[in-house]
Amino acid sequence: MTHYEVPQVYNRLWTTEHEPVLHIGSGDTLSFDVLDAADGLYRDYENGGPLPERDPSRAYPLRGPIMVADAQPGDVLEIEPLEFSTMGWGWTGFRPGAGLLPEDFAEPFVYKWDLTAGDTATFLDVADIALRPFLGVLGCTPDTREGLGVMPPGHFGGNMDIRDSTAGTKVYLPVQVEGARLMFGDPHAAQGDGEVCVSAIEAPLEGTLKVSLHKDRRISAPQFRTPGPLRSGIEDAGYYATTGIGPDLMEASRDAVRAMIDYLVAEYKLEPRHAYVLCSVVVDLKISEVVDAPNWVVSAYLPLSVMR
Amino acid sequence: MTHYEVPQVYNRLWTTEHEPVLHIGSGDTLSFDVLDAADGLYRDYENGGPLPERDPSRAYPLRGPIMVADAQPGDVLEIEPLEFSTMGWGWTGFRPGAGLLPEDFAEPFVYKWDLTAGDTATFLDVADIALRPFLGVLGCTPDTREGLGVMPPGHFGGNMDIRDSTAGTKVYLPVQVEGARLMFGDPHAAQGDGEVCVSAIEAPLEGTLKVSLHKDRRISAPQFRTPGPLRSGIEDAGYYATTGIGPDLMEASRDAVRAMIDYLVAEYKLEPRHAYVLCSVVVDLKISEVVDAPNWVVSAYLPLSVMR
Repeated sequence: MTHYEVPQVYNRLWTTEHEPVLHIGSGDTLSFDVLDAADGLYRDYENGGPLPERDPSRAYPLRGPIMVADAQPGDVLEIEPLEFSTMGWGWTGFRPGAGLLPEDFAEPFVYKWDLTAGDTATFLDVADIALRPFLGVLGCTPDTREGLGVMPPGHFGGNMDIRDSTAGTKVYLPVQVEGARLMFGDPHAAQGDGEVCVSAIEAPLEGTLKVSLHKDRRISAPQFRTPGPLRSGIEDAGYYATTGIGPDLMEASRDAVRAMIDYLVAEYKLEPRHAYVLCSVVVDLKISEVVDAPNWVVSAYLPLSVMR
Repeated sequence: MTHYEVPQVYNRLWTTEHEPVLHIGSGDTLSFDVLDAADGLYRDYENGGPLPERDPSRAYPLRGPIMVADAQPGDVLEIEPLEFSTMGWGWTGFRPGAGLLPEDFAEPFVYKWDLTAGDTATFLDVADIALRPFLGVLGCTPDTREGLGVMPPGHFGGNMDIRDSTAGTKVYLPVQVEGARLMFGDPHAAQGDGEVCVSAIEAPLEGTLKVSLHKDRRISAPQFRTPGPLRSGIEDAGYYATTGIGPDLMEASRDAVRAMIDYLVAEYKLEPRHAYVLCSVVVDLKISEVVDAPNWVVSAYLPLSVMR
């Protein structure tokens, strides 16, 4: 077992053409830092100020690729985040055409978070969000020489945005090419299941990962194992939940989130755009039932302990 | 506040034509018993024996309709289950053409549960399921004289199968017609989010409910509030989770459940049909992300503390 520092190189596409930045073996650990998915664009942004112009070519700076000795297609790569720390700031935002409710939110918006308090971050004067950092993007490079954008996840992993892949959770990825070519990034300080407005608390992170290779397992898509309860300390006050009911899970998800936004606006006097941001960082989407044909139920769960 | 016994009458369709069985006021409480959604068909069934023939006309026996004084369309009816108790037995099954994976499971199957132990029920020799009873069907009659089948839920509520509507949770339903015409049934002893095989631990229940009317609220679909943490005592060992990733939430749900069945077969030597039943009663479907176009992530979470 050797400990490595991940070199300060970024790549922004999935392709086997990238020069490897590091060679490691099974059981080795990695220290890294990584910029947020907007490449630091909002570092100097202040709430209410003019929005800096997005440059899509700078999106999703990833660390790697890291080559793992002996990794072959069909093997399983286990990634265990050991610790994460935030770096003082983060942002959540949405833009025209993206997110779950683009028709409801035509204007772009960014909320800048102060993360210097450590374990929690304050949202306006209404909520305190517990920080549970993780990497939104974690993947074994797919077998492609053509560069693929990082936005969509796939069976190789990638931009899965699984909020429970926090420190202590073991994430299992199917190796696609020789050496695995592990890449990761898109660090999040907190997120709800669904990430409904299209961003989490996007925040640069430092951290360490342990990487292990399993040659005796086969999986066709990512899997993971959490070390314990999922929401300890952030659900003691229970949840308020809204539902979307209908024949399409996507529309049901939209209806559930719209109802939650309405609830936050009515009960907490939030502006709709602020409610949308809050949904994205703390509200969990669950599929309550998917078998009572022809109508399914998606529920959006707000943990009430975050609300002041 | 008056306490009533709900009369021993069943109705099996949603329609305003049913004769009311009871008239109550806001704040009143109700005691009831209610048969399972198969109307007791499997009461004498023994595992491995010949399956009794289903009679779809007997499906979903519901208690009610119960008239609530002053309830008008647009009001909100709050239903708070105060306590539930199981009655010794239950069943979980699937049949051709129903459930999330009808193409994978062509043969009908029923597993009979012994619920006499009280708080938990043993599944084969592999798992112990914590009982968390609730009513799968809870609804204010929609404004229809034509009889509507109970299977699909709607904005009026009905067959929502929300596993967290256990004792202590307050469920809010939009009143559709004068008097609300509350009906309920489809009792479940335990269920995972999704109810993937098409049934929960279907089990007759006795219980009490408190019914309250809110004239100052408006909701367009059911909402609910839980009193505290969702999975206390059944998630201490963490979760094993599988994913489905792709452009359709339904297909992603199927992929996640198929991967979980494969995992249960490989790790615990279950038959696939037993794994499917176990998924339906304890595995939770979550929408991990629904914004990284064009691919979404649905995750299936197995609480490991249920496994022996």
